[in-house]
Amino acid sequence: MFSSTRLITRRFPATGRQNLRRFSSLEIFPDEPKQPSVKTSSVPGPESKKLSERINHIQDPRTHVMVVDYDSSLGNYLIDADGNKLLDVFAQISSIALGYNAPPMLDLARSDAFVKAAINRPALGSFPPVGWAEWLEGGLMTVKPKGLEHLVTTLCGSSANETAFKAACMAYRARERGEGADFTKEEMDSCMENKAPGSPELAILSFKSGFHGRLFGSLSATRSKAIHKVDVPAFDWPAAPFPDIKYPLEENEARNKAEEERCLAEYEKILVESKSHKPVAAVIIEPILSEGGDKHASPSFFRSLRLIAKKHGAFFIVDEVQTGVGATGTFWAYEKWGLKEGEEPDFVTFSKKMQAAGVFHNLETRPNAPYRNYNTWMGDPMRAIQAKKMLEIIKAHNLVEHTKKTGDALYARLEALAKAQPKMQNLRGKNNGTFIAWDFETPAERDAFVGRMRVNGVQMGGCGDKSVRLRPTLTFGKEHADILVDTIEKSLGQL
Amino acid sequence: MFSSTRLITRRFPATGRQNLRRFSSLEIFPDEPKQPSVKTSSVPGPESKKLSERINHIQDPRTHVMVVDYDSSLGNYLIDADGNKLLDVFAQISSIALGYNAPPMLDLARSDAFVKAAINRPALGSFPPVGWAEWLEGGLMTVKPKGLEHLVTTLCGSSANETAFKAACMAYRARERGEGADFTKEEMDSCMENKAPGSPELAILSFKSGFHGRLFGSLSATRSKAIHKVDVPAFDWPAAPFPDIKYPLEENEARNKAEEERCLAEYEKILVESKSHKPVAAVIIEPILSEGGDKHASPSFFRSLRLIAKKHGAFFIVDEVQTGVGATGTFWAYEKWGLKEGEEPDFVTFSKKMQAAGVFHNLETRPNAPYRNYNTWMGDPMRAIQAKKMLEIIKAHNLVEHTKKTGDALYARLEALAKAQPKMQNLRGKNNGTFIAWDFETPAERDAFVGRMRVNGVQMGGCGDKSVRLRPTLTFGKEHADILVDTIEKSLGQL
Repeated sequence: MFSSTRLITRRFPATGRQNLRRFSSLEIFPDEPKQPSVKTSSVPGPESKKLSERINHIQDPRTHVMVVDYDSSLGNYLIDADGNKLLDVFAQISSIALGYNAPPMLDLARSDAFVKAAINRPALGSFPPVGWAEWLEGGLMTVKPKGLEHLVTTLCGSSANETAFKAACMAYRARERGEGADFTKEEMDSCMENKAPGSPELAILSFKSGFHGRLFGSLSATRSKAIHKVDVPAFDWPAAPFPDIKYPLEENEARNKAEEERCLAEYEKILVESKSHKPVAAVIIEPILSEGGDKHASPSFFRSLRLIAKKHGAFFIVDEVQTGVGATGTFWAYEKWGLKEGEEPDFVTFSKKMQAAGVFHNLETRPNAPYRNYNTWMGDPMRAIQAKKMLEIIKAHNLVEHTKKTGDALYARLEALAKAQPKMQNLRGKNNGTFIAWDFETPAERDAFVGRMRVNGVQMGGCGDKSVRLRPTLTFGKEHADILVDTIEKSLGQL
Repeated sequence: MFSSTRLITRRFPATGRQNLRRFSSLEIFPDEPKQPSVKTSSVPGPESKKLSERINHIQDPRTHVMVVDYDSSLGNYLIDADGNKLLDVFAQISSIALGYNAPPMLDLARSDAFVKAAINRPALGSFPPVGWAEWLEGGLMTVKPKGLEHLVTTLCGSSANETAFKAACMAYRARERGEGADFTKEEMDSCMENKAPGSPELAILSFKSGFHGRLFGSLSATRSKAIHKVDVPAFDWPAAPFPDIKYPLEENEARNKAEEERCLAEYEKILVESKSHKPVAAVIIEPILSEGGDKHASPSFFRSLRLIAKKHGAFFIVDEVQTGVGATGTFWAYEKWGLKEGEEPDFVTFSKKMQAAGVFHNLETRPNAPYRNYNTWMGDPMRAIQAKKMLEIIKAHNLVEHTKKTGDALYARLEALAKAQPKMQNLRGKNNGTFIAWDFETPAERDAFVGRMRVNGVQMGGCGDKSVRLRPTLTFGKEHADILVDTIEKSLGQL
């Protein structure tokens, strides 16, 4: 089995290989390791375990994968506390855009602007720094989603989503009240008691298997796993079904289309029926349901979601916290939906790889009065400066295009491998850059595989119940993909 | 009027003055300005306004006070975009511990450890850095509240509070279930639908005028102002009354005691009555209700709150996001309550001046399974390193003791001033360091005063409807207090 799969994956398209030569991670990381090396018989090794035990006196270490030497890690290689050198295709749960210790980012971090921004964190909403407009205009605003001209900055993805929820509820109620109408005394009094009409019966609609964060509002919209939700009070908000797509797509076209139609009908039914008692102020969805197991649907499905939301007066939030910043081969994953002018989302949220977090939106959803969607920090200028520099590098090296090409070639190799390897099921993420996943038969088999990968030198992440997901950086290229696929073959053979 | 109040406040106690000589901000900021200077006829000046207008194309500027030149600001002096040099006693809504651009903090920010932590932000719960235990042990854990040995790090105060809410709800349900009992299938299924029993009918009890953040859970506990809450769906959680204390305290002792008793009875009634339909899993309170208008109560009132919560099985969360880190003359404000061993709070949350944010707790409230109170970043190592260094400086210079003394002397001067100045009402914060506030007759008069202070060279903040609050740094000393009081006198005279 092992040798036959190796043979199959050698059939690598020559054109793909040529295209990939355009960018090499060595341009940014001249000293990046050439390959993984694992010194300890298991990962985490003894030094990692010792440090986790020390942390245990303060914090819960049960979720530790390994303890990392970030000072030595470089590019796509993570170096752990035991000196193991691992190719990292999980990248801090999809949160590293370029790689570890990118020299231009280190230079930035040593600059006066960055150092002073780090040490003098302001209350941005009240005392913004003189450079603030410039940092946004030259950074985050250069990647603003089409049609969205405004931005609320936040500190994390959960807060970004909840900021969008709040803005959507405020705008929804403003529309109900009518232009220029002020709050009633009853609203102002009742909201102090957490009662309607001031605290309105409005809902955020999300999708089964969706993940939008862990705070009380975002967790109410999250439907990934019970262990994320159990015991925490939740808003009585609806969840629509997300299509259960069958793979390979070519063989299941009619069935998948019917499944999408079924979900759209159910979704519209919820929007209509909720109007009488708890209207949906906003719909939130990830372009790929990532935490929930890399669940995909067709661009036309997503476009329909957006149009149906508009039809029923619900705002539409695209959660690009995990999918944003190029990993899917377009800067925003939702760009693949083919939305026409006037169909743009009302909100696009981001965090993770961007390091800075926030919500793009339009003027309609700026609250009618100040201090309504406000807090002390309102984001962090230092992270905005970091995002600006990172985006400059991404553009200078065409890293989104690079990731698209890397992903296409990688997918082709994995597809070939999956054909010969029944353990790899439901391979998905074609035409989605390096945002690729597949299933195993059982959670235990998945976990065993991820463990083997680690010992074989690759740090990979799971998602859903029995899936693995690839979330490498944007500098991940052919040379890394070769090592990755070889290691997958080897690890599958060892299961 | 003006000259008579000046005379009164000259009677500054000599002993206080001597004690204050122990520390001068010049030890940390040798080049700190000696006094404010305002160049423009109004603050914000034209340059600030121009920059706010530029930001307006991206973000809501209606909450801007002024645009700040953080590169030039130093120590207790904030320098704005127009070159105005203001003594800052608001300190970014109580979020600056030492002052702007403290040289040792700038040195830290240029160090390799800091630079690499800033650029390589990890998924802390899964891939902690090798230095993590050391940074916590030498930093945040050195100020752990008595009896609380564990710490969940977060990115902001709202998240810290919601993390405590979640942990409290989990621990509450675990206690109901009994030792070692697992979740039922019904719980795991129902929580995915946001329904009981998996999403339980549990409440967080807070207090009227309390402020605990702006996200959906924390906002449901926040009862500061309607404009913070209106139009946002809220959990049906109860709010207990907070005593309406009358000043001066010496003249209102019996009345205030009766008022506290009334509130305690009402509070206990809510705890008892909620048991049948929506039990209170946790009570949250600030030691001084800051955002709500610097509302104080007696130590014995707070101790009773804690004991009554325990009696009825509710966890007790002390929100020290604004009061923590020394400004009240003790490191944690709740230390003044005189809690005995075994009476410690279950959770103490912090953020703001600490720069790092989080929740101190004990092992009982570590969830029974991993990934229950988890997220991607789980705080930020860079901010933990920053907090460690800051705490070292605070200890080396005895800045908490310094702030206690500064506050005592400042309070005495303000007390004398208030006796001669009927516009200063309900002066409060005695024996609470520099955490001092007072009221004006109307919101408009308060706003006019804050505006005059600014033009006269002092940046001061409001709170509640018609209060002002002092929130200077911990390096704020006699020389600053003199300028502050003189400017208050001058500004009152100009109203």
